[in-house]
Amino acid sequence: MPKQELHVLGQDGADGCGPALLTAPLAADEAGELARVFKALGDPVRLQLLSMIASRAGGEVCVCDLTPAFDLSQPTISHHLKLLREAGLIEGERRGTWVYYRLIAETTDRLAAILTRPGGRSGAEA
Amino acid sequence: MPKQELHVLGQDGADGCGPALLTAPLAADEAGELARVFKALGDPVRLQLLSMIASRAGGEVCVCDLTPAFDLSQPTISHHLKLLREAGLIEGERRGTWVYYRLIAETTDRLAAILTRPGGRSGAEA
Repeated sequence: MPKQELHVLGQDGADGCGPALLTAPLAADEAGELARVFKALGDPVRLQLLSMIASRAGGEVCVCDLTPAFDLSQPTISHHLKLLREAGLIEGERRGTWVYYRLIAETTDRLAAILTRPGGRSGAEA
Repeated sequence: MPKQELHVLGQDGADGCGPALLTAPLAADEAGELARVFKALGDPVRLQLLSMIASRAGGEVCVCDLTPAFDLSQPTISHHLKLLREAGLIEGERRGTWVYYRLIAETTDRLAAILTRPGGRSGAEA
């Protein structure tokens, strides 16, 4: 797990589930770190890449299977994947010629937690 | 509730909780709409504003109480609030001199839902 992901979404909230967003004013330093993760999600291509990686049976996707799905150059796709990696949303492992990516589910778990209202009114029930 | 919020996070997912992100590849049009909401969250000042609004006892905050909390001009704060409004994250109501903002919790609920893994492994348990 990348060090920066631990930093971005550390156990610093009152409830031990990362920074509070809906229950207490967010501190400036927490806001900066959290904004970087949301910013990584704030692009359609990166959301599609993340979705392809997260939903793949077996849990990982070869970059060679991601690039052909987009009408974009390989360096552009690589750049988007780098931003997702830097945000702690995915991790990549080189095996031979290709890099294989998988979701870091702990990061999406923590985002889900800070977006969930206390008291059980979650989106799953809405 | 703003029309665009209904459009952005409509009931179009297989589970009826908005677009699937973690369980199926996201379609390009869904990705574009969802990215706009995440992009609105991808800024530290907007996250702090959202947090101040969401966590306020009574559920709403006067813009006159938001602006002094930042070392930013009133037009800059207004611009950030506009982006949060356009993303369907907050709504504002003018009463007399001031605009009062409140969280649209259905939007954060839906974001939480699409970031929650199926099968119950949510961030609250991580």
